[in-house]
Amino acid sequence: MRIDRAALADLATGAAFLGSGGGGDPYYAMLLGEAELARRGSFELVTLDVLADDALVVPCGWVGAPTVSVEKLPSGKEAMAGLLRLETMLGRKIDAVMPIEIGGSNGLAPLVAAAELGVPVVDADGMGRAFPESQMAIFNIHGISACPSVVTASSGSLTVIETSDNVEHERLARALAIALGGIAHMVEYPLSGAQAKAYAVPGSISAAIAIGAAIRQARAAGEDPFEALFTALWEGGLYSHAGVLFDGKITDLERETRGGFSVGRIVIEAFDGQSRVEVDFQNENLLARRDGRIVAMVPDILTVMDRETADSITTERLKYGQRVKLVGAAAPAMLRTERALDFVGPGAFGYPDAYVPIEQLNGWGA
Amino acid sequence: MRIDRAALADLATGAAFLGSGGGGDPYYAMLLGEAELARRGSFELVTLDVLADDALVVPCGWVGAPTVSVEKLPSGKEAMAGLLRLETMLGRKIDAVMPIEIGGSNGLAPLVAAAELGVPVVDADGMGRAFPESQMAIFNIHGISACPSVVTASSGSLTVIETSDNVEHERLARALAIALGGIAHMVEYPLSGAQAKAYAVPGSISAAIAIGAAIRQARAAGEDPFEALFTALWEGGLYSHAGVLFDGKITDLERETRGGFSVGRIVIEAFDGQSRVEVDFQNENLLARRDGRIVAMVPDILTVMDRETADSITTERLKYGQRVKLVGAAAPAMLRTERALDFVGPGAFGYPDAYVPIEQLNGWGA
Repeated sequence: MRIDRAALADLATGAAFLGSGGGGDPYYAMLLGEAELARRGSFELVTLDVLADDALVVPCGWVGAPTVSVEKLPSGKEAMAGLLRLETMLGRKIDAVMPIEIGGSNGLAPLVAAAELGVPVVDADGMGRAFPESQMAIFNIHGISACPSVVTASSGSLTVIETSDNVEHERLARALAIALGGIAHMVEYPLSGAQAKAYAVPGSISAAIAIGAAIRQARAAGEDPFEALFTALWEGGLYSHAGVLFDGKITDLERETRGGFSVGRIVIEAFDGQSRVEVDFQNENLLARRDGRIVAMVPDILTVMDRETADSITTERLKYGQRVKLVGAAAPAMLRTERALDFVGPGAFGYPDAYVPIEQLNGWGA
Repeated sequence: MRIDRAALADLATGAAFLGSGGGGDPYYAMLLGEAELARRGSFELVTLDVLADDALVVPCGWVGAPTVSVEKLPSGKEAMAGLLRLETMLGRKIDAVMPIEIGGSNGLAPLVAAAELGVPVVDADGMGRAFPESQMAIFNIHGISACPSVVTASSGSLTVIETSDNVEHERLARALAIALGGIAHMVEYPLSGAQAKAYAVPGSISAAIAIGAAIRQARAAGEDPFEALFTALWEGGLYSHAGVLFDGKITDLERETRGGFSVGRIVIEAFDGQSRVEVDFQNENLLARRDGRIVAMVPDILTVMDRETADSITTERLKYGQRVKLVGAAAPAMLRTERALDFVGPGAFGYPDAYVPIEQLNGWGA
């Protein structure tokens, strides 16, 4: 399967939605992808099942605060420098690259990296959405080491991290990203083909492309892009429920860059002023309360979208006064197991509340 | 030349003085050294001139806030892990180890590392004292890269840093040290024998041992240990002037751990209450003002010592009420060149004042 310019644009739209507000606005990654496509024609996408069990599959993406990514542009050499170093360290060639997270710009950036390296991208990812911290990858949930990992920066610096503790790994990578100006590229969780097949979220790139295509086609046909989005999610199967949680205007926004994250809170008020929703975020939108009652919780997806165009608005692009719909979608089932929730559920973000699936919170039928 | 248990204790005394308040109290490093000596009998010390021009000479030491080193003890495996990784990366054996700084515990710790690796320690170091930041090493002043460097921690984690910018290198190492709990071991500035001979501060380990021996002998003979210290510094030649800058009691102490450093200010008042001195520190004592007038500036050495025993009190050991003498000594001449002062003079620490040698500030004769 090949990804051409049209599919890349659809992927950007879909990845922005699946980012749950995080992963960074995909716009700049799309431009870099288009530049690469002008040279190569298309990107090669392969399904998990074609990987040999002993293949070397390498997830990668950017780590840091998306607020920084808007202003601090990459050199374009970061991903290749990291991938090549990993090849040297492991003494073998990389067979395929994978987004560490499908959400936001990190769902697109690995396409360019893979093309430069001359290998395909695997139609899968390590989070099924975007999460703020590296140890929230599904590979950590299954006990796979993040190391050796390679952190590279636009300055040309390269850092190799080796630790058996994936939480320490995240802490070190975050500290480096901050010291490198707020954002850095990371190659991490090197996988065997067997591990990728067993644990990665399957089909998430093609799911994102399908989401983007559905929204694009609905816009062209003058149909409701939100209905098209929900249908695409439903038909794809990976994200089983979705719907609009709230419709209104952003009337308050707190956002700061702290500890290497973009952290804050959004208030959206209904146009009649009778109701409001509050959304907490740490890079990604984490939890929403409508009039005090929780209506969505991590790991379910929670994305603020322009209420006319259905453009997803990543957390660093939020502004006072935006007229938006807050859209929720069920996370992939593999993120909702009891074991996974220990790593990516509300408790992992310091919330005392037990996880309740978004479809139960909102009475959405199966 | 061999360093036995007695010489190790003298080295601890001398390194504490040369640390200018920093480098960490050498007591724990001395205990580790004694344990190593119980197995090996003595440490091998070689002079710079025996190094082959193409030898691989590796400086190392601890990076972080000395305040942390008091409470967070090492695993004992940090140095070896870093040195062995450097050997693997460079594809050759290390021929000798060197303290990155003679001051404080970092003047002793490399003895154990070298013994474990089975190589000698070079009688030299990279700072001629202690400085808070890695790029203040004399090797950076002469344009040598700090990289590849290896940062290791008691957790077992290992990080390799590669950057052509030695200031960025310091920033990354500091960020890692903070993320690793406040302190980490670092192997850095790998040198050829020719570079070590051209740039390292020569004879600083034996100078520290001579300082310690002089203080010990004076105490045993009931003589003034300060006079013995000044005579030893003078006779050694590396530190050309020294003297007591102030005598009194610590009446105020501000100290916090900030940005990976122990930062603060000491006030010492004369016993008659008629005069006071203020000393600023960032791990190391940097600048002293007596009744508002500067009496010592980096890179000259500035150490607070117990006024009876002449024990050097490192900045993390300072306490309200201590009765102390503030002692100054001229830095090695190679730290006082115009070029060196750009890296280690008052301006490098944000002071607007031009450097004036301590002997001029205090009217000490040659």
